[in-house]
Amino acid sequence: MFVHTVFFWLNHPDNSEDRQALRDGLETLKSIDVASATYVGAPADTRRPVIDHTYDWSLTLIFTDKAAHDVYQEHPTHLKFVENCARYWQRVQVYDAVE
Amino acid sequence: MFVHTVFFWLNHPDNSEDRQALRDGLETLKSIDVASATYVGAPADTRRPVIDHTYDWSLTLIFTDKAAHDVYQEHPTHLKFVENCARYWQRVQVYDAVE
Repeated sequence: MFVHTVFFWLNHPDNSEDRQALRDGLETLKSIDVASATYVGAPADTRRPVIDHTYDWSLTLIFTDKAAHDVYQEHPTHLKFVENCARYWQRVQVYDAVE
Repeated sequence: MFVHTVFFWLNHPDNSEDRQALRDGLETLKSIDVASATYVGAPADTRRPVIDHTYDWSLTLIFTDKAAHDVYQEHPTHLKFVENCARYWQRVQVYDAVE
């Protein structure tokens, strides 16, 4: 399996329209069926020193393998998401892991 | 859903026995059936400035809700993992996300 995890920090975290627009954009990624599972989330209310809860939205995609991940990266819906939504984030942090 | 993601950095990344011991410990977590899915991984060979590939092992757990996550945190197999394996890591980074 290949787990692609992304955390997003908004440019304007106090702007609820930006926040919703990025969330809406992330939701469009769920239609990309090359992923086995797609999770869009917000920070939980868990608090420990080792937990980073400063991000605004998270995205976790499960793929059967790296080839499927590579298809996702070039998928038109993903490219459109980046084109439409990159303006909303100041920072993204990505982790890719293979089993 | 509740996604619990953890990245581990080894105390001694050049020590292959430590590396394997932590991996073996992480594998024991797959027996905890309160999680809907459990992924243990290593950094993929993807390389972009936004990708952090410096960690040694990753753990992604999918739960139906925070209550299931809370059961996991106190599960004997998880507590035994922490007791046996905390010596191997110098740093853990946790992200908890709710859908």
